[in-house]
Amino acid sequence: MQSPPAKPLFVTFEGIDGSGKSTHLSRAVEWLESRGHRFRFTKEPGGTDLGNAIRAVFLDPQWGKMDGRVEAMLVFGSRRQNLVELIEPALAAGEHVICDRFTDSSLAYQGVRDETPPEWIAELDELVTGGKRPDHTLLFDLDPATAVTRGRSTKRQEAGDVDRLDVLEMEFYQRVRATYHGLVEREPDRFHVIDSGGEKEATWQQVEAILEKLFGGPA
Amino acid sequence: MQSPPAKPLFVTFEGIDGSGKSTHLSRAVEWLESRGHRFRFTKEPGGTDLGNAIRAVFLDPQWGKMDGRVEAMLVFGSRRQNLVELIEPALAAGEHVICDRFTDSSLAYQGVRDETPPEWIAELDELVTGGKRPDHTLLFDLDPATAVTRGRSTKRQEAGDVDRLDVLEMEFYQRVRATYHGLVEREPDRFHVIDSGGEKEATWQQVEAILEKLFGGPA
Repeated sequence: MQSPPAKPLFVTFEGIDGSGKSTHLSRAVEWLESRGHRFRFTKEPGGTDLGNAIRAVFLDPQWGKMDGRVEAMLVFGSRRQNLVELIEPALAAGEHVICDRFTDSSLAYQGVRDETPPEWIAELDELVTGGKRPDHTLLFDLDPATAVTRGRSTKRQEAGDVDRLDVLEMEFYQRVRATYHGLVEREPDRFHVIDSGGEKEATWQQVEAILEKLFGGPA
Repeated sequence: MQSPPAKPLFVTFEGIDGSGKSTHLSRAVEWLESRGHRFRFTKEPGGTDLGNAIRAVFLDPQWGKMDGRVEAMLVFGSRRQNLVELIEPALAAGEHVICDRFTDSSLAYQGVRDETPPEWIAELDELVTGGKRPDHTLLFDLDPATAVTRGRSTKRQEAGDVDRLDVLEMEFYQRVRATYHGLVEREPDRFHVIDSGGEKEATWQQVEAILEKLFGGPA
């Protein structure tokens, strides 16, 4: 077991939908609490009252498929607010920050859309957050085919029931996953890739090993 | 009287608060209608349903003084939506577009804030709208001291009743006005500067002369 880190850490959790990220994030928060670490938990989009008001506009189904750049304005508006109201003040006060998604999600998700290629997102990010990056990022990685079918009944899974929309969804997530892999290649020290394709407990053991390494024993 | 323009025009109205812009905009809309011109009227922030949802977040007093970059995300989110949903389709369909404020307002208003200097706004604008500019802009220009005291009772005006907050407000509008003047210097052909410091009718005569020049006689 290592000693606690000298400076507060900004740690994010990333991964495609259905990757098990949220489940393990809850458990990671419990893990940090049980060891008495001082930290703030936040998420994107949202995380602050103003961020949540922006998130509500972002998620409202009445807009249908939103223009990619309008979407990016909302996501980065919420992000900037999270940064100036919560993340930076918490780090300055010596608290760790754990955040569910951050700019990597914009690069991976919005970046696959035509109106907002990754270079565009990166330029916007530089303007809005000054290119702020977490100290560490846990990436929950698995085959999108597994992620898409995981939420289903055992019966449908066993039947191998995959329709046309499932295929489109899987293709989309394949592109998102590939983008995440590209980010890992560029910043191998920041990313901790977790194989999330196996049993829940096997995934957690990988998460816990990283938490031990980053945060050490009881604070 | 000139003949109607060959292509649909994108025309904006700009000016500091209290400049008489809104009053003359309403009259300009009536003028265009009475001559049977095909046009769409829109405004910023807002103009579309999604833009109005963003505007509601932007104006909500509970946020107090909003971070300048968060504010810029909301304004440009609303602007992008206005552009892709209303302005560009209308122009493509052969309709003129009259818009109450556009990017010049961001440069003049947000641009005076420390977090969002004019160069920053210009870079953001390039990313979000591709640097879209109106064909013509009517700038309602007057001394901020006149604008600030105009809405007041004759009694207070005659008493020359100016308090500390009024002075701060005037100083702010002096900076906004100076930025507008800088924009006019850079694009003298696009801007039509209207002296809005005199009687309402004298201002309208200037507006009407410009409308005649831009749109000509009955469509």
